[in-house]
Amino acid sequence: MSIKKSNLLLVIVLFQYLFAPAQKNSNGVVAKSSLVAPLVDAANSRFFYFNSATRPFGMVNLSPDMNLRGTWNTGYRYNEDTIKCFSHIHCWEMSGIPVLPTTGIFKGHLGPDTYGSSYSHADEVAKAGYHKVVLKDYTITAELTSTNRVGFHRYTYPKSDDSYIIFDFTTVLGSSETQSSKVNKANDHRIEGEVTMAATIRRPKPITVYFVAEFDKPFTTFGGWKKGVVIPTLSSLEGEKTGVFVKFNTIQGEKRLMKVSISYVSVEEAQNNMKSELPAWNFDEIVKQSAQDWDMMLGRIDVEGGTKVQQQRFYTDLFHALQGRRIVSDVSGTYIDNTGVTPLKKQVKLDANGKPKFSMYNSDSFWGAQWSLNTLWHLVYPEITEEFINCMLQMYDDGGLVPRGPSGGNYTYVMTGAATTPFITSAYLKGIKGFDINKAYEGIRKDHFPGGMMSKAGYEHNTFKGGGIEEYMVLGYVPFPLTPIKYGFHQDGAAQTLEYAYQDYALAQMAKVLKKREDYDLFSLRANNYKNIFNKEIGWMWSKNKKGEWNQQIDILDYEKGWVEGNAAQYTWFVPHDVPGLINLMGGNDAFTTKLNESFIKARVHNFVSGKSENPVDQKLIRRVYLNYGNQPCMQTPFLFNYAGKPWLTQYWTRQLIDSVYAGISPQKGYSGDEDQGLMGSLAVLLKIGLFSTDGGTSAKPFYEMTSPLFDKITIQLNPKYYPGKKVIIQTKNNGPNNVYIQSSQMNGKSFNMPWIMHDDLIKGGLLEINMGATPNTKWGIETLNAPVSTLQKK
Amino acid sequence: MSIKKSNLLLVIVLFQYLFAPAQKNSNGVVAKSSLVAPLVDAANSRFFYFNSATRPFGMVNLSPDMNLRGTWNTGYRYNEDTIKCFSHIHCWEMSGIPVLPTTGIFKGHLGPDTYGSSYSHADEVAKAGYHKVVLKDYTITAELTSTNRVGFHRYTYPKSDDSYIIFDFTTVLGSSETQSSKVNKANDHRIEGEVTMAATIRRPKPITVYFVAEFDKPFTTFGGWKKGVVIPTLSSLEGEKTGVFVKFNTIQGEKRLMKVSISYVSVEEAQNNMKSELPAWNFDEIVKQSAQDWDMMLGRIDVEGGTKVQQQRFYTDLFHALQGRRIVSDVSGTYIDNTGVTPLKKQVKLDANGKPKFSMYNSDSFWGAQWSLNTLWHLVYPEITEEFINCMLQMYDDGGLVPRGPSGGNYTYVMTGAATTPFITSAYLKGIKGFDINKAYEGIRKDHFPGGMMSKAGYEHNTFKGGGIEEYMVLGYVPFPLTPIKYGFHQDGAAQTLEYAYQDYALAQMAKVLKKREDYDLFSLRANNYKNIFNKEIGWMWSKNKKGEWNQQIDILDYEKGWVEGNAAQYTWFVPHDVPGLINLMGGNDAFTTKLNESFIKARVHNFVSGKSENPVDQKLIRRVYLNYGNQPCMQTPFLFNYAGKPWLTQYWTRQLIDSVYAGISPQKGYSGDEDQGLMGSLAVLLKIGLFSTDGGTSAKPFYEMTSPLFDKITIQLNPKYYPGKKVIIQTKNNGPNNVYIQSSQMNGKSFNMPWIMHDDLIKGGLLEINMGATPNTKWGIETLNAPVSTLQKK
Repeated sequence: MSIKKSNLLLVIVLFQYLFAPAQKNSNGVVAKSSLVAPLVDAANSRFFYFNSATRPFGMVNLSPDMNLRGTWNTGYRYNEDTIKCFSHIHCWEMSGIPVLPTTGIFKGHLGPDTYGSSYSHADEVAKAGYHKVVLKDYTITAELTSTNRVGFHRYTYPKSDDSYIIFDFTTVLGSSETQSSKVNKANDHRIEGEVTMAATIRRPKPITVYFVAEFDKPFTTFGGWKKGVVIPTLSSLEGEKTGVFVKFNTIQGEKRLMKVSISYVSVEEAQNNMKSELPAWNFDEIVKQSAQDWDMMLGRIDVEGGTKVQQQRFYTDLFHALQGRRIVSDVSGTYIDNTGVTPLKKQVKLDANGKPKFSMYNSDSFWGAQWSLNTLWHLVYPEITEEFINCMLQMYDDGGLVPRGPSGGNYTYVMTGAATTPFITSAYLKGIKGFDINKAYEGIRKDHFPGGMMSKAGYEHNTFKGGGIEEYMVLGYVPFPLTPIKYGFHQDGAAQTLEYAYQDYALAQMAKVLKKREDYDLFSLRANNYKNIFNKEIGWMWSKNKKGEWNQQIDILDYEKGWVEGNAAQYTWFVPHDVPGLINLMGGNDAFTTKLNESFIKARVHNFVSGKSENPVDQKLIRRVYLNYGNQPCMQTPFLFNYAGKPWLTQYWTRQLIDSVYAGISPQKGYSGDEDQGLMGSLAVLLKIGLFSTDGGTSAKPFYEMTSPLFDKITIQLNPKYYPGKKVIIQTKNNGPNNVYIQSSQMNGKSFNMPWIMHDDLIKGGLLEINMGATPNTKWGIETLNAPVSTLQKK
Repeated sequence: MSIKKSNLLLVIVLFQYLFAPAQKNSNGVVAKSSLVAPLVDAANSRFFYFNSATRPFGMVNLSPDMNLRGTWNTGYRYNEDTIKCFSHIHCWEMSGIPVLPTTGIFKGHLGPDTYGSSYSHADEVAKAGYHKVVLKDYTITAELTSTNRVGFHRYTYPKSDDSYIIFDFTTVLGSSETQSSKVNKANDHRIEGEVTMAATIRRPKPITVYFVAEFDKPFTTFGGWKKGVVIPTLSSLEGEKTGVFVKFNTIQGEKRLMKVSISYVSVEEAQNNMKSELPAWNFDEIVKQSAQDWDMMLGRIDVEGGTKVQQQRFYTDLFHALQGRRIVSDVSGTYIDNTGVTPLKKQVKLDANGKPKFSMYNSDSFWGAQWSLNTLWHLVYPEITEEFINCMLQMYDDGGLVPRGPSGGNYTYVMTGAATTPFITSAYLKGIKGFDINKAYEGIRKDHFPGGMMSKAGYEHNTFKGGGIEEYMVLGYVPFPLTPIKYGFHQDGAAQTLEYAYQDYALAQMAKVLKKREDYDLFSLRANNYKNIFNKEIGWMWSKNKKGEWNQQIDILDYEKGWVEGNAAQYTWFVPHDVPGLINLMGGNDAFTTKLNESFIKARVHNFVSGKSENPVDQKLIRRVYLNYGNQPCMQTPFLFNYAGKPWLTQYWTRQLIDSVYAGISPQKGYSGDEDQGLMGSLAVLLKIGLFSTDGGTSAKPFYEMTSPLFDKITIQLNPKYYPGKKVIIQTKNNGPNNVYIQSSQMNGKSFNMPWIMHDDLIKGGLLEINMGATPNTKWGIETLNAPVSTLQKK
């Protein structure tokens, strides 16, 4: 019975999207925001994945939460039928300010499992910047929207003498527990306060969020509870396990508005954020502005052709690429530096107009970004790239290290290596230069030596151990096992070796441009280290112990033998900077192609993913796969055929991946793993526009690798501050579900026969024409000898 | 791929059970313990559900845990492929002493998500009193057994210089978080200490468990960690977020033994528990003794006939009926009284031999036990009933109230009403009298007035509110809603009214026997209160508000309108003590039968359950059902046909329930809800032996209602200390899957034609013969006029 019901609901939801009237702007163009389907993959949400009432990179991300406890299956969960609260923060290692309107008997002190409400997807509207849901248990229609730092609520109540809005500071969301709170009644239409989130294993210090909640009409009562005991009226309340409420009478259909502004700095900054961003009470206007904000950002890429669902999914992918990572500084530019002994209030430098030069961000690391954000952001949103680089350099000033995943104003050391090196290098090489390059070089170089990020295992807060850079510099690889005691997570030498070698290459290219010859030589040499763990006997990369012996019990599908969230089968292809070298190790183009193609054929059986998010995180057996497009370690694989003179296989497999992994707008499926704050969304966008970069744009002359675009016409607006060409139009002819093979190509009328385009050519703008067909043209794109890829310098 | 693998594993597991050599004892009888299949329903475990290495009601319940965090889906979880630890305590609102042996790099300080190990069900053996599993990541074979208060481990290690046993005191299991610990190295083969579990919402005070771990060979190193930082060698360690380990070298195949004894009183009592129960190192002998312990208890009921799977499932049901509720006092009889300001060490009175007269127990409430434990325990295990009654009276001495679900030595006030009243009344009326009846009457009577349990909502620790007894005494029903603020959980007046009326009836019967005439009159009158919420217009029970008006928005399937874990459709039948009165309200036997039969027909569509445990707890939609055999509120329903002169419908539907809900030994399915510490196991046993009691045995002359037994022959050994008849044999003729209808019956050769048997007759022992057939004999069992049911006294 329940299955039938959920199928019915699914149909209703799909109908909502499919038959929604296309929202057109004044020019008659379909508004891109109206194509975003926030419910994609919402059955498998991790707490910071789902977004609706939020702006691009917005500090506030207001949306319903069904599951609260757990690092993985929490936040908006489509298949759960109880909404527990609307939280304002859904952010990596942070969460907070959960509220819920209710009527009738007061149950706030009994916790969200008790006061949570039924709802139906049939009554729900989820859009970019707006969410509407009916809380059935209370007969309340709740609508949510936001500015960057202010959540805006419109609740339509039934007639009731007992209408409430509950603020619960006893809860958890994701990994982030509420530690304590302090709330004051300012007057009869405003409360304000602070809530401290407890430290987590990844974010080792508490962090406080300040808030101001304003109501458009006075409340009659301000009350709360402490440790389960209700205190009916209050002027202020503080401590552990507390919550507060405002109470009022409502007539049938009465609309109540509430604005909740936040800041990580102070109540005053929260007030200022509200005053600056949302002074009025114009709910519908803010919904409209939010859509326009999204339209502007999403509209940088305009696609034509394909099905409506394909377009919807494309803009949903792009929607994800523009958030997950969240602004944490205030309108004024104040932010919390939590890298030291106590949290310090600091100020981002102001420009001539008195505005902060950039924002500070909370973010997972850039691990894997070479195959996603590096290419999408640097080309389409260079100003965002620049913001993030400046934020990272500010943290370098504050704490002495370029961060690997800052959260709560502090380092988290998430994942491994120094993924900021290719991110910053690629930006600089592509012409994004609005930051202090000398400081940047100094900062990222530090990470490649003992005492930097390559010294630290993932999440290792206490020591500089587990990274293995010391051994890497002496032995030419990071041994596995490294130490008798495991410091931090992801102390996996084989994967670290491959990652470091690539990042060393990127740093070498930067050194070359900056004319640091010694560094160039040093890091170029280190970039060859990947060869040290290629085990010729088995034909795969494999881990070595400290004595230089291959580890026993070879099992290329085992995750536990020196690999970070992957295995030898997936990691063997991780030589982004020297694919020709890897091809050579494997015995040439044909041997290489056969091996990689077989991996794809095997991976097709399980739809190219290992089922991570649909299943509990600790399912070890289902990870035993050759390729996994549900996580970062082998995202580049289909593009390697381009390097081996078989571009049609790149075209074939990328389209297969799109169809299997990145298609459809079902709430039940979407990214099949960990969307990871825009990494998967970006990758999906790149696959669909047909541009990619295996080396993450880190070669001295950055270039893009081509595959079949999904759409008939793709127009990329270039930011004139960075790139001269205004726009790039990618036009396909004879494209279709079966016509996935490139037959010929022209750039601005001139035919070319390589599967890549130079960055410098692309940013001049113009028309890239691609003729498609149903059978491979094995003559197109095979001029690999003309590849712009630098083969490594040998010493 | 993963699906195929799990199917294969399922087949392997089923093979293990199906083709296991039948273990026979010296008399050639199949040992009942060998028929127990602990893995039944293990995919849906709640943390205290799963049992393997434990004794009946054992303080120690040692078994693997796959999921740790969460009130529901935690503990042993069959479909998860990582074992995080072996915890010694799996107890309602308590858990603790998780250990895991490992080899290689030390990862203890990184937490169980990191150090947990793969395993395969193919290598696993789970039996009553024994569990074996191979930890693949460490190549360790782990075997577990126990005495009552001591866990016994045998680990077979590979060759390793880095063999460890980890004790992790940073973890959570179920709702119970570890707050702090303190551990000392006593010598090179013993460590000892204490671990404090934090308070929970249900158990509002912390509780400390003390332990001693002894090793058969010395360890070389005792170390630990604190807040993620490893301390390689230690003599002692205390604080928050700590763990310890012992380390040693092992040769290939080396077996290491460890005994872990616990006490809730002191390290000394833990030592004494080990000394008394497990002084030696004879692992195989303890496995054998444990099986014998189970054989003795399970063997009280011997079944013949049916399929092997039916027998396996029957003894698995019985296995669950004999645990879940756990002993918490020591061998010496010491225990913790945590009802006051500080925990007090107390001592159970000793008998002439210096042994404690009874044990103290941790236990969920007896909510619903009138349809399960009341009948099974009182008849087959009267000495257990007596233990529990004495334990409850001890708590009455200690804290002033007969408990409703004691945990951690304190009250929890779990669920609603005073379910101990029918439990104790029924025991006394059946002849179980080894307790102070005057104290018992005083204690349970208190619960029926303001200041007792009927004053308190579920889990209401802070006030005497939410129970509604005050309103019930004035208005004749508990209003819904009761108060503007919800005190505690389950403040659901309609369900409370029905429950209180029944419990008042039970107390009236006790008063009658004790010749307390005024009380008898008072409670008999109150027992009529169920009639006050029967809504004749709709034909169902319905909730009334304080003004005496029926609540609006009638929806008999809604859980949120005054019902405790049920709805009006399920609760309407809840008049255990006056079924004739209910039949009368509904317009007589035929109207009553039609309505109830239709409910069953509707419920068959969803297999009679609402899918609670297979789905998250907060799935509200799937609860909208007419009957639910996955929880307690309407367990008695199929037996009501006996009262309406249609016993063949009782016979038909009970067999349908067995086949749908309580059949098979799959790990994927079992009790389809909340097994609830033996309640569901007991119910399944009763359905299968064909004896039940709608009024929970609380009428002045207790009797059993009959349905078709599942087996050819059922022999119940009676405890001679209580019952004179030695044994009851229930013999069926012509029984089978289609022959579910009783044709005729004889007791000790004498035919009878009522669907019930008096308790006083049954305990005289003898032979109950039942002839079965494929079509209803509508002449059998219809002499309802001769029912022993007391119709209520009217005043």
